Amino acid sequence: MSDRPTAPVPHRLAEWERRTETPLLVASLVYLAGYAVHVLVPRPTGPWRDVVLVLVAATWLLFAGDYGVRLRLSGQGRRFVRTHWLDTLVLLLPPLRPLRVVQLYTRFQLRRERPLLSLYARVMAYAGTSALLLGFSASLAVYQQERDAPGSTIRTFGDAVWWACATLTTVGYGDAVPVTPLGRVIAAGLMACGLALLGAVTGSFSSWLVQVFSRQDDKRPPEGG
Amino acid sequence: MSDRPTAPVPHRLAEWERRTETPLLVASLVYLAGYAVHVLVPRPTGPWRDVVLVLVAATWLLFAGDYGVRLRLSGQGRRFVRTHWLDTLVLLLPPLRPLRVVQLYTRFQLRRERPLLSLYARVMAYAGTSALLLGFSASLAVYQQERDAPGSTIRTFGDAVWWACATLTTVGYGDAVPVTPLGRVIAAGLMACGLALLGAVTGSFSSWLVQVFSRQDDKRPPEGG
Amino acid sequence: MSDRPTAPVPHRLAEWERRTETPLLVASLVYLAGYAVHVLVPRPTGPWRDVVLVLVAATWLLFAGDYGVRLRLSGQGRRFVRTHWLDTLVLLLPPLRPLRVVQLYTRFQLRRERPLLSLYARVMAYAGTSALLLGFSASLAVYQQERDAPGSTIRTFGDAVWWACATLTTVGYGDAVPVTPLGRVIAAGLMACGLALLGAVTGSFSSWLVQVFSRQDDKRPPEGG
Amino acid sequence: MSDRPTAPVPHRLAEWERRTETPLLVASLVYLAGYAVHVLVPRPTGPWRDVVLVLVAATWLLFAGDYGVRLRLSGQGRRFVRTHWLDTLVLLLPPLRPLRVVQLYTRFQLRRERPLLSLYARVMAYAGTSALLLGFSASLAVYQQERDAPGSTIRTFGDAVWWACATLTTVGYGDAVPVTPLGRVIAAGLMACGLALLGAVTGSFSSWLVQVFSRQDDKRPPEGG
Repeated sequence: MSDRPTAPVPHRLAEWERRTETPLLVASLVYLAGYAVHVLVPRPTGPWRDVVLVLVAATWLLFAGDYGVRLRLSGQGRRFVRTHWLDTLVLLLPPLRPLRVVQLYTRFQLRRERPLLSLYARVMAYAGTSALLLGFSASLAVYQQERDAPGSTIRTFGDAVWWACATLTTVGYGDAVPVTPLGRVIAAGLMACGLALLGAVTGSFSSWLVQVFSRQDDKRPPEGG
Repeated sequence: MSDRPTAPVPHRLAEWERRTETPLLVASLVYLAGYAVHVLVPRPTGPWRDVVLVLVAATWLLFAGDYGVRLRLSGQGRRFVRTHWLDTLVLLLPPLRPLRVVQLYTRFQLRRERPLLSLYARVMAYAGTSALLLGFSASLAVYQQERDAPGSTIRTFGDAVWWACATLTTVGYGDAVPVTPLGRVIAAGLMACGLALLGAVTGSFSSWLVQVFSRQDDKRPPEGG
Repeated sequence: MSDRPTAPVPHRLAEWERRTETPLLVASLVYLAGYAVHVLVPRPTGPWRDVVLVLVAATWLLFAGDYGVRLRLSGQGRRFVRTHWLDTLVLLLPPLRPLRVVQLYTRFQLRRERPLLSLYARVMAYAGTSALLLGFSASLAVYQQERDAPGSTIRTFGDAVWWACATLTTVGYGDAVPVTPLGRVIAAGLMACGLALLGAVTGSFSSWLVQVFSRQDDKRPPEGG
Repeated sequence: MSDRPTAPVPHRLAEWERRTETPLLVASLVYLAGYAVHVLVPRPTGPWRDVVLVLVAATWLLFAGDYGVRLRLSGQGRRFVRTHWLDTLVLLLPPLRPLRVVQLYTRFQLRRERPLLSLYARVMAYAGTSALLLGFSASLAVYQQERDAPGSTIRTFGDAVWWACATLTTVGYGDAVPVTPLGRVIAAGLMACGLALLGAVTGSFSSWLVQVFSRQDDKRPPEGG
């Protein structure tokens, strides 16, 4: 989702992106599910634990491979790392992958000629889904860090989800708060991303409401109901 | 309040909606009042309690009946459930009914040719009233869940209202916080809805203020006061 | 600050408003100062206390008198109460008077032909000053309610101001929180008003920044600096 | 960054500003680094401590000197203090200097003909960087005030940064809160500035997202993918 006019995408890169879209979308969901199982299932019996770890690692390799192929096909060399900073970031911080899932899904919809929602509804859907997925990932990550920390107030996954809700909406009750350094770094990341995403949801909802109400005026019968 | 151009509403459906508007508005208020009495009045003496429960159940059946009739008259079949998602949601989660009350009231005003407020004032009025009614419903629901929970900080209905205020405005002091799982689910719902609604109020107020101030420029006398 | 086109203001009313403007602005500031002294000075010695109370009462009578005269001169009868709802509200809840002070000051500036600030700067100045004055009034009122309440966390006026800051900005740490019913009602009022006002400040600042940056583009030298 | 049309900047002032730009940018960073070392390094051994103090003092004198020269060259006399209020404020409250750093950097980029980001991206970058630098300065200042205060909840610099994150995003958990009067004044300043800056980031992000999505519509292939 680049903002500046870019050079035309080389043909082979476009072809590659078209072909890998569906597999990557599936892999992203597998990755997220695998990470969730890894964190949430308490002491999974031997073989299962290995299966999940292999799955998570395999999907990550898939992402790395896709990144490498696209870097080559683009013919941009090192500049690709900067022009596709979202892809780079997501590769290094896999829990941010949800941001990419939503993007893939949007393109998927475009291809299948599904009726698109109105502009504001689409922004709301994109930002809202991103916020939800980010909140879910952050809950998993914070839960993993905090559950056994001394003095922790996030003991169950339910607590972690409750904490993520209060943080994303900036309510911040303070009854469940990360206490470990890594937990706090994740929390700061969630605040920064979540704030911007939720701001977009709120802003679009507001614009949409104004739009609906301003249309109401036109529909109003010229005389008596 | 659909956002996309829709097929023309069949004549009989429009007729039905016009006729049921006022009764449904009354029924919605009766429902909310009944629910409030059910939650707030401590151990109502036998007959009264039954009267209230019957009232709440009866109004809900009314809503279900109206939904069924409209589903048939629309001739859309199952698609109606999706295109009228707000109605469907409100049927399943009656405490969200306030959202519909405000909508009915708006249409009511339109019909009676009451002078409409300016665009931003209307958005503020709609979103603000929705937020107030949602906050009231959430206070009732959370109070019902939390009042007897061990370790609860929401002991009186006043606490619940105070909690709802701090949550809707995202202040979130944390002195009154739900501790039961169901209470937290309701709270998360209030945060999500309330945030969007209050964002609309704030945004419209801001736009309105800019409008008022920009009009001031035009009124300014060209020379000396 | 009405939003709709209104009937032309009768000549005598306009004359009255022009003449009472400056005295009322002074009276408003006297009222606020008197209220502050009444709350903040601990056990003022006999005569002083009376002087302050008389002052506060006298200014309030002045406001009531002005309201009455304008109600008569407007020739609107009871409709005046509704069309001038801000004046009515401020008369009944004197601590809200700051809202009117700012309004008077704005008109005062207009009359004296002072160079007006840009549109967004003016909205920021108006909303920001209103928020500050409201926060100050609310600090005084909450301090008066809470200072001797059992279990209170607002013991000094400094605590009250700190609480008002955290509330207006919706940070809401929760280390200083009103516990009395009346204190909570005042707090809810501050949240509602303050949220809207600060939203206007933030929104205008954002618009202003975009404006400044978009002007920067035009200034950019066409070739090498 | 003035908002109103101003008299043409005298030639010699422009020349001076062009020449001092780079040295001042370096001095600002040195000042911030020196302040950070002064606060963070525990009991630096004798000579080092003095070096740092001298460095901080020297850079401040540099800023004062620059201010004085520009005041003279401008030929505005005392009016300069008001028209350049940001510079004046930054001179008196050096921890606010970051605001000026960002401004210098922006001009620097303009001069070097670097490709400018899109409008919204620039507002996001400016406001976001300012917020980060302000948060860092406030963390240092609050940490200095609070670390030895009785009853303090901000004991390490990590706590201070965590507090600044929760405050800037208005989450406000309340687990780390300043308790000293001076610490609270700094906190109130951070809330006020940070709120406006982050509001600008959020608003611009929202506008940018709407822009990106609305462009998507145009790119959509007219028939079948």
